[in-house]
Amino acid sequence: MNEERKPTVFEIEEGNKLLPRFDLHEFLPCITLDADTGEVLMLGYMNREALEKTIKTGLATYYSRSRKKIWVKGEESGFFQHVKDIFIDDDQDTILLKVKVDGGGASCHVGYRSCFYRKLKKGSNEELEFTETHKVFDPKIVYKHA
Amino acid sequence: MNEERKPTVFEIEEGNKLLPRFDLHEFLPCITLDADTGEVLMLGYMNREALEKTIKTGLATYYSRSRKKIWVKGEESGFFQHVKDIFIDDDQDTILLKVKVDGGGASCHVGYRSCFYRKLKKGSNEELEFTETHKVFDPKIVYKHA
Repeated sequence: MNEERKPTVFEIEEGNKLLPRFDLHEFLPCITLDADTGEVLMLGYMNREALEKTIKTGLATYYSRSRKKIWVKGEESGFFQHVKDIFIDDDQDTILLKVKVDGGGASCHVGYRSCFYRKLKKGSNEELEFTETHKVFDPKIVYKHA
Repeated sequence: MNEERKPTVFEIEEGNKLLPRFDLHEFLPCITLDADTGEVLMLGYMNREALEKTIKTGLATYYSRSRKKIWVKGEESGFFQHVKDIFIDDDQDTILLKVKVDGGGASCHVGYRSCFYRKLKKGSNEELEFTETHKVFDPKIVYKHA
């Protein structure tokens, strides 16, 4: 086997070469931001194929752990995410995308702009309050199978 | 066993109760943002104890998968993260914290503000460029064991 040498910590953290380190299940978490507002839209997962497709096509492509398949975000809803920048973190085990979202700008399958539409109420350890007041789309209409 | 009823998808996605869904390894990913700038500082992991401590103490507390222990961010560097808001995503398997960071505002052990200090160069599929031009602190000084 002509296996590649394992990169050093310095190469991973201080180098200028993409050396993605996938986890035990061959996934990387991916934080996706709205390129215009900086808002965090969602957290998805990528395997190597999803990352390579994202780089090659410019469309955010994830791996669905529940459906166990590669998934181009927007392929069903039409709300594609056009990749503007691809960041990687210090130890190269997390991706961050800056994207422009088609349509109403929504990235959450529940119908909100962001998946993070609820926060813990001050002083409570379990009560959530909604921070988005209305849905951008109706998932029953957008997703035919819903 | 007096086990709790499994929550419904509606309760998880549309409810106002925190029902965190930890993964097979009992972890949740946690995206941490600078509360002032909105900048993504890091991605960490929490187990139930880390999440409960974060809520109770107001200091961002993670689980280190490499060191296999609970870890109050800043306990060594002094750069504690004071939690302003705790968001959870639609399917309640990702946390998002908004924090104020002590000291120089750095959250990356390499010395940068954000762990996401490199991005893929346009047109390349492996060359990274640095987006932060200087380190906020010297890790050799801040981390005594470095």
